[in-house]
Amino acid sequence: MNPPDVLRAGYAELVVTDLEAARWFYVDVLGLIVTAEEPDALYLRAFEEYLHHSLVLRRGPVAALGRLAYRVRGQSEVDTAARYFEDARRVPAGTTRGIGEAVRVQDPLGFPIEFYYDAEHTERFTQRYDLQPGNAITRLDHFNVMVPDLEAAHAYYTGLGFGVSETIEDEHETLYAAWLHRKQTVHDIALTSGEGPRLHHIAFATAERHQILHLCDKLGALRAESSIERGPGRHGVSNAFYLYLRDPDGHRIEIYTSDYYTGDPDNPTVRWSVDDNRRRDFWGHAVVPSWYTEASTVLDLDGAPVPLAAPRVREGERTGVIVGADGFGAAGDAGFKLGKQV
Amino acid sequence: MNPPDVLRAGYAELVVTDLEAARWFYVDVLGLIVTAEEPDALYLRAFEEYLHHSLVLRRGPVAALGRLAYRVRGQSEVDTAARYFEDARRVPAGTTRGIGEAVRVQDPLGFPIEFYYDAEHTERFTQRYDLQPGNAITRLDHFNVMVPDLEAAHAYYTGLGFGVSETIEDEHETLYAAWLHRKQTVHDIALTSGEGPRLHHIAFATAERHQILHLCDKLGALRAESSIERGPGRHGVSNAFYLYLRDPDGHRIEIYTSDYYTGDPDNPTVRWSVDDNRRRDFWGHAVVPSWYTEASTVLDLDGAPVPLAAPRVREGERTGVIVGADGFGAAGDAGFKLGKQV
Amino acid sequence: MNPPDVLRAGYAELVVTDLEAARWFYVDVLGLIVTAEEPDALYLRAFEEYLHHSLVLRRGPVAALGRLAYRVRGQSEVDTAARYFEDARRVPAGTTRGIGEAVRVQDPLGFPIEFYYDAEHTERFTQRYDLQPGNAITRLDHFNVMVPDLEAAHAYYTGLGFGVSETIEDEHETLYAAWLHRKQTVHDIALTSGEGPRLHHIAFATAERHQILHLCDKLGALRAESSIERGPGRHGVSNAFYLYLRDPDGHRIEIYTSDYYTGDPDNPTVRWSVDDNRRRDFWGHAVVPSWYTEASTVLDLDGAPVPLAAPRVREGERTGVIVGADGFGAAGDAGFKLGKQV
Amino acid sequence: MNPPDVLRAGYAELVVTDLEAARWFYVDVLGLIVTAEEPDALYLRAFEEYLHHSLVLRRGPVAALGRLAYRVRGQSEVDTAARYFEDARRVPAGTTRGIGEAVRVQDPLGFPIEFYYDAEHTERFTQRYDLQPGNAITRLDHFNVMVPDLEAAHAYYTGLGFGVSETIEDEHETLYAAWLHRKQTVHDIALTSGEGPRLHHIAFATAERHQILHLCDKLGALRAESSIERGPGRHGVSNAFYLYLRDPDGHRIEIYTSDYYTGDPDNPTVRWSVDDNRRRDFWGHAVVPSWYTEASTVLDLDGAPVPLAAPRVREGERTGVIVGADGFGAAGDAGFKLGKQV
Repeated sequence: MNPPDVLRAGYAELVVTDLEAARWFYVDVLGLIVTAEEPDALYLRAFEEYLHHSLVLRRGPVAALGRLAYRVRGQSEVDTAARYFEDARRVPAGTTRGIGEAVRVQDPLGFPIEFYYDAEHTERFTQRYDLQPGNAITRLDHFNVMVPDLEAAHAYYTGLGFGVSETIEDEHETLYAAWLHRKQTVHDIALTSGEGPRLHHIAFATAERHQILHLCDKLGALRAESSIERGPGRHGVSNAFYLYLRDPDGHRIEIYTSDYYTGDPDNPTVRWSVDDNRRRDFWGHAVVPSWYTEASTVLDLDGAPVPLAAPRVREGERTGVIVGADGFGAAGDAGFKLGKQV
Repeated sequence: MNPPDVLRAGYAELVVTDLEAARWFYVDVLGLIVTAEEPDALYLRAFEEYLHHSLVLRRGPVAALGRLAYRVRGQSEVDTAARYFEDARRVPAGTTRGIGEAVRVQDPLGFPIEFYYDAEHTERFTQRYDLQPGNAITRLDHFNVMVPDLEAAHAYYTGLGFGVSETIEDEHETLYAAWLHRKQTVHDIALTSGEGPRLHHIAFATAERHQILHLCDKLGALRAESSIERGPGRHGVSNAFYLYLRDPDGHRIEIYTSDYYTGDPDNPTVRWSVDDNRRRDFWGHAVVPSWYTEASTVLDLDGAPVPLAAPRVREGERTGVIVGADGFGAAGDAGFKLGKQV
Repeated sequence: MNPPDVLRAGYAELVVTDLEAARWFYVDVLGLIVTAEEPDALYLRAFEEYLHHSLVLRRGPVAALGRLAYRVRGQSEVDTAARYFEDARRVPAGTTRGIGEAVRVQDPLGFPIEFYYDAEHTERFTQRYDLQPGNAITRLDHFNVMVPDLEAAHAYYTGLGFGVSETIEDEHETLYAAWLHRKQTVHDIALTSGEGPRLHHIAFATAERHQILHLCDKLGALRAESSIERGPGRHGVSNAFYLYLRDPDGHRIEIYTSDYYTGDPDNPTVRWSVDDNRRRDFWGHAVVPSWYTEASTVLDLDGAPVPLAAPRVREGERTGVIVGADGFGAAGDAGFKLGKQV
Repeated sequence: MNPPDVLRAGYAELVVTDLEAARWFYVDVLGLIVTAEEPDALYLRAFEEYLHHSLVLRRGPVAALGRLAYRVRGQSEVDTAARYFEDARRVPAGTTRGIGEAVRVQDPLGFPIEFYYDAEHTERFTQRYDLQPGNAITRLDHFNVMVPDLEAAHAYYTGLGFGVSETIEDEHETLYAAWLHRKQTVHDIALTSGEGPRLHHIAFATAERHQILHLCDKLGALRAESSIERGPGRHGVSNAFYLYLRDPDGHRIEIYTSDYYTGDPDNPTVRWSVDDNRRRDFWGHAVVPSWYTEASTVLDLDGAPVPLAAPRVREGERTGVIVGADGFGAAGDAGFKLGKQV
């Protein structure tokens, strides 16, 4: 059976416990545009997005991922999705404000996923430079999830027609992480080995790096520098310039720029060695442990937290160094980067 | 007695054990321009400098600081320096290639210092954009030294006519570090409390931040990412965007941009609290311990290493958290930044 | 009959009269990478490209466009192209070095076009930051052609499955220019009304704007500033930050960054009024006349120059102000910007 | 008699006919900070300035320069100024809000000049990144004036102790323009030959170039692109990256970044040939005629417009190509840049 023709990562719904705090973070600081506002929800988009939203913040009792949504190529592909998944649920137009009739499914990896096409158009603010702050965000880029069985997750997504742009592997071709895409960038979804299912982060793109630097400066000025978990830095994987923030509920948000074109069918998969210290940080910096160990709970389609499974242990894989993903970074032989940090 | 009228930090001489490795680092990677080359020495300048050199690399048995040199307002100020210091030594023109008659002194803080004015002019490459790499360095900016007695060092430099642009202090006005300037930037010299006398770093400036980011990328591409000790980041103090590298001998080099104008006599001194986590990193990141504990030996005027003294302990000062300078950073109350890092 | 499934603008072949001068311009100044070199040809690629070349420079008696080549989704699509065009010519693998069996056709607009899929892979230098100059170019982006009958050209390309991202129109929906894409950017091909068929320009992308600014500075330093025809500036159309150069033969090269994602099927077409001064320059600057009037001759499949036709005049279209494309720029009511522009 | 020890260009007062329009331009668009506001005046400063203002906008019947003010090294230097100028007028503290007792004089070139030291301190917003727009301005940089007798103006300012950083000259050493400084940048004042006395422009600095590009984009978004007179571009002279705007009254404002350190007494004067096309635009672009011909009226100390004198003609100077300053730009031998420029 054909899978639905996915265009790209479309939107995410995050459940937040304090909507006012979330509004401060996403609207006042990150500068996302409010398309619509309800007492218990905010619908946000970035400056180049013409659909109703790429992020929904919904007030709830427990911080969690409510839903990841992929946009498909047309309304008929929503039907394809309904056929493709055994337990697909059709939801009528407007179930999520601004979104047409859609299909929801708890995917085989345990994530609440929506497939949709119809969506309300709004004004694209690409050239509304008068409204853009120094840290203007252009668009949602990708999702990153933690999964206990990376091989299964990899098979599931390639089965959905995603291409594999980059991986982290060891010499036995054991996978530690994978980046997969439908749109012509490095990824729409990244898979990281770890206790799961959990959401590692949602990533938004900026046009250039100075906008990410300005965001850091703004957070420092607001004495909110503790929101900065990691970065800015350059990923070896994907070549992207990154910054990781934690929102007031602890959800991780990446701000990201400058990956590369992947649209040709023979686009070469870049295979990083798990032993190459530059895979996670091209500049060789150690990774803060929380980045490997903490992630967001996901909800099932009925709103209940999905129980976690421990990562499957693969024969011969790196042990003792694995926390969640692909091992802590040891920054080479220079004494000053041995990884003890204060 | 009047002190010599110092213009600015002028040049430094570093003793390196492997001149070829040093050439690779300073010329091939950093892109400094070779004004002159001898079997045992390299004379380097940056793209906006029209004097013979701002850095001398000299081959020697032990990695050390050979000399810090301040340029004074004229040759008569070299004479003033000769009178100002008890044990001043006059050295004839050419003692350092490209430099005229100068005065050397082991200053009261234990550092080998030269005062000079006459210097050979060379072509200023400000607009030789055809020769500038993506990480072009424009000029030497400042020296940073570790001293056991910060109050004494502060008094010595203000006695030399330096202005105090910024400090780190506690609630008793105990000084933990100070930034002082003659030229109209934040500093020509920074003083950090710690075992000394030692050279903490020499800093060069770029025009913009992207040049610093490119340097990081270049080091990653060359698999020399372990040369990156800390950063890039934003200092709270001085507002500068910083990167700290370690050369093949372990000498620390800062690459730096965007501090501010300090040229008016009433320029306000910015006093940072030692408890403000943003003083050392405006984005709240922990500081790698080596940055606090490691520094370069300095030589006396006869070329012998200067013995170290432990930092003087001040009554009531922060203890238990001090390593060398102003205490390790504790990155606030966010769990993910508690400072354990892998 | 189905058209071939075009991926994107793939490569161009320019005929140059002085290959050494062209090498200086494209390799020494622009910094393109030489994949292969022959006595009469250079095969060049940019830093993110993993196929053999995106630009071929071939020595010839008259400066001209030799060929525009589109990459299709697979070798079977080359066959589709062979069927789709009446006078298609199959050329064996290696007819162009590095390119597999392909199909060439003089398209209905008079341009020499190749459709290919198989191509030799080379190293992708995305992260070879050690080799990247300050003005590093990442990839070929698009072609821009001048056509006497814009409506016909528009119909031809939409028939080939290209999406229309932006247009310049008047109040009667008369088209003055159109931007069409297959890959998920604003364009692979732009159509400009004018005497044709001629090549207006070939465009390469950079990651950020500072790389374009550095290129200008480099040209100034080399006293080659007369190579800069127009820009840098911001296009209203496409939102791209642009620079137009003229190579030693007069071929026009655009360097370009920061357009936007167009990959969804309902991506809105942006329709600019021919009377909106910001369409060609978002900052309102006049356009140098040569940019409207000069363009490169194109060759037919046998290497003969294709005769030019005057633009078809449409009823009611702007007259008296048209030079080739979409009319003279009038920069508003500010005296200092009146009248000196075309 | 000793001249007053000038620190730098301190502030300017512009008379504007529509204070609300001026507020829109300087506050809403340029983002200057309002320190104080009165029914007929606005007192503005930039993000790194800690004194009360660097720009006063005062409502008046005719657009004009009200006053250029230099800050001197101390209040005693205000007295020195009072002695140095024959017709000096002392004005009590508060004559200009925020400024202490000062001295005003119509200088020998016909400009209304103030010398002051005491000034109210305000908060320096260097690190208030939360308030800084994408086009944040850091500080006032310099004034540029048109004078009929360039040699006299040059002599007057060097007599005041200004250093000459750059000039435009012909082969007979006839001066066409000169840049002079007290602070350690390329200039505090620039002198341009032309009908005068008139104010050519006031310049503000940004930290980096992207802030200038954002300002252009913002003006385009606001449909105020006709405020952009010239640029952005790179000056050959001073190496600065520039943008020239015209405010609603026609006063010219430059936004400017990246000149170089000039603080050493032997800083070499850069002498540009009037025939080097890169002196005014390092990228070889033509200069819009208004930039050479239009400038602001200046008022005398009693508020009356100062009559204009035609430029003194020097023997053997370039004629036929001079409009005000240093001659029309001829952009070299490339056909596409010929003739349409002044």
